[in-house]
Amino acid sequence: MKIMVLGGDGFCGWPTVLHLSALGHEVVIVDNLSRRNIDNELEIQSLTPIQPLGIRLKAWQEISGKQIQFFNLNVADNYARLLDLIVEFKPDAVIHFAEQRAAPYSMKSSWHKRYTVNNNLNATNNLLAAIVESNLDVHVVHLGTMGVYGYGTAGMKIPEGYLKIQVQTDTGELIQNEILYPANPGSVYHMTKTQDQLFFAYYNKNDAIRVTDLHQGIVWGTQTEETKQDERLINRFDYDGDYGTVLNRFLMQAAVGYPLTVHGTGGQTRAFIHIQDTVRCIQLALDNPPAKGDIVQIYNQMTETHRVRDLAKMVSEITGAEIDYVPNPRMEADENDLYVTNDKFLGHGLQPITLEAGLLEEVTDIAKKYADRCYLEKIPCISYWNHQRREKAKETHQIDPHQSASARKISS
Amino acid sequence: MKIMVLGGDGFCGWPTVLHLSALGHEVVIVDNLSRRNIDNELEIQSLTPIQPLGIRLKAWQEISGKQIQFFNLNVADNYARLLDLIVEFKPDAVIHFAEQRAAPYSMKSSWHKRYTVNNNLNATNNLLAAIVESNLDVHVVHLGTMGVYGYGTAGMKIPEGYLKIQVQTDTGELIQNEILYPANPGSVYHMTKTQDQLFFAYYNKNDAIRVTDLHQGIVWGTQTEETKQDERLINRFDYDGDYGTVLNRFLMQAAVGYPLTVHGTGGQTRAFIHIQDTVRCIQLALDNPPAKGDIVQIYNQMTETHRVRDLAKMVSEITGAEIDYVPNPRMEADENDLYVTNDKFLGHGLQPITLEAGLLEEVTDIAKKYADRCYLEKIPCISYWNHQRREKAKETHQIDPHQSASARKISS
Repeated sequence: MKIMVLGGDGFCGWPTVLHLSALGHEVVIVDNLSRRNIDNELEIQSLTPIQPLGIRLKAWQEISGKQIQFFNLNVADNYARLLDLIVEFKPDAVIHFAEQRAAPYSMKSSWHKRYTVNNNLNATNNLLAAIVESNLDVHVVHLGTMGVYGYGTAGMKIPEGYLKIQVQTDTGELIQNEILYPANPGSVYHMTKTQDQLFFAYYNKNDAIRVTDLHQGIVWGTQTEETKQDERLINRFDYDGDYGTVLNRFLMQAAVGYPLTVHGTGGQTRAFIHIQDTVRCIQLALDNPPAKGDIVQIYNQMTETHRVRDLAKMVSEITGAEIDYVPNPRMEADENDLYVTNDKFLGHGLQPITLEAGLLEEVTDIAKKYADRCYLEKIPCISYWNHQRREKAKETHQIDPHQSASARKISS
Repeated sequence: MKIMVLGGDGFCGWPTVLHLSALGHEVVIVDNLSRRNIDNELEIQSLTPIQPLGIRLKAWQEISGKQIQFFNLNVADNYARLLDLIVEFKPDAVIHFAEQRAAPYSMKSSWHKRYTVNNNLNATNNLLAAIVESNLDVHVVHLGTMGVYGYGTAGMKIPEGYLKIQVQTDTGELIQNEILYPANPGSVYHMTKTQDQLFFAYYNKNDAIRVTDLHQGIVWGTQTEETKQDERLINRFDYDGDYGTVLNRFLMQAAVGYPLTVHGTGGQTRAFIHIQDTVRCIQLALDNPPAKGDIVQIYNQMTETHRVRDLAKMVSEITGAEIDYVPNPRMEADENDLYVTNDKFLGHGLQPITLEAGLLEEVTDIAKKYADRCYLEKIPCISYWNHQRREKAKETHQIDPHQSASARKISS
């Protein structure tokens, strides 16, 4: 298969590229290196020593004998070149990772909200418009998020994308219908993914574009079978308050001997998936494309759910770290349940890696191994969702709102 | 009230500005004159001799004694200046008309799709982000469209924005819920308005921004009480295939003695409202703002529905014009029913102007009066929704797809 990966240098993109290349597909990367540039902006770096893309690709060629082409291109603002690449390469599938993907980053300031909206929405629209203009039959596989659903379900497992409803007519009759699950995003970043769904639904309806949208949980784990083969292929590990997910930040805090910072009560339930399962899911999505004329195919790409405080306990048990409860910078409920259907990937043969089985490896092979590369002061979340949350943090700690309780502890 | 009108030089914006100024509100216009620039691009002009904004504002000052300030500004790409204006002017309300609003224009080419998405989504997001950053309590009144609902309702009147649904839990229990009416847009333009809804819902939830979203039908009529007072105040009348609505194009075709071009069977039912009622509705929305903490308030801003072929018959009866059925360039059902709830504006006292009562005035005072300014070859719609529709038009007429049946008739 000929596959173009937009955002192929990123955390999910890079291991996907290697996995598909290893399987024998012809892969090209399109990326503007924005994630590396954001590291510069935030004055942070991946805990793991990721290499420049040129070195990565050279190492992969040495090891596998396979060549991967790279085009440095911003798909959100260079439509003409994107279209040319599609017309010349004639991909069977385009995997679309080319979006700003951190909720806290999207909430840092007005500029960050606007960057996320402008980048993510124009990237998706440019891709779809280019496929229409090319008149090629390209399968689009998009990395969405479980966050499109919002959190909190009343007695019902979250279905895979579509919700069965009943509506009462004016004569009292009940009609059955199936709709896109009502959007309830928790950040500007998540909001853009709900807006992406409307792009996909529209271009699918109007132009019969074939789309698979993957509603992914929080990814944990760093390495895959391919990235492990040489240290030059190592994948990113983000632990900072903006890009680091809750689990990675706990691992780092434990590795450097500081209390794990739980936001609020830690009663938030989140969905998780290992990076190795992410790349397998993408492979399965590529192998099972929707037919021409089918509606947008949606999968829930997650394998288990946990409450944040339970995660903290798991990490604490392995590492002996203490737990610290701090004000939640996010505008969200303190506690929520989350039950999710993921039958479609399981039906295709996915065999999930569990947190229980894989967590220790993350502690020893990643967090402890590279602990000396950690900037401690970057771990706390200092991106507040709104004025109210910022004021609350200020009041609770009587400190500068740009420095949280944990930041003080770590820097003291 | 201090009111900022984004897009205050446009077809709905200009009469709104005058109406609110006449009522004694302090009004400022923010506009980048994009609609006039698109006239240049399309090599067309308003049938009515609209004046430069400076002359319009001078005339209004002479007549009413009221001054209206104008800022030439692209709200989709000059965030800093938009924020400054909001912080300095401290508006009680911002009316947001600053979007590309023609479905056929949004479908003309890939460039037009991307322009519409980029302009409309960044404009809305910039406005909301600026209000959050200003920390002011500003009521946002947005001009949406009936097109967010899609066409076709199964035995149910379309409610005002929110749909009551029942969902079955895993134990078989039925839960009641109310959701944003599922989006089903008919063009890229309409799609952007469904994405706008997600912006409003999110900023309302996260930052308690007060929003009223007006789902407007197709506006007909040209003049309002204020624009009639001096010819220098006259409002736009668009009749071209991109910006002219179906009714205006029929009026022009009748005025210049050509058959009325009905797309497909003409069985499409559409919602309508007179421009005078538009400005009254906006006044009513301003006078009845949602309270802080309320969800987004949604009104259906329309007063009657008609099938396209019935409109053609009405115009034909008044003018004697013939009717011509041509292939539909749009991707849509040939026939649809449309029943719409509009109780909220009626409850606030709106007394609709009916098509039956007002249509003759449009024929004599506008279409016939200015018929010599009409470019005949601009009337047909030549923006096809997709490859399939373009091919069908080509096949039916064995002509260049860029020239429709009516274009041939008119130019012959």
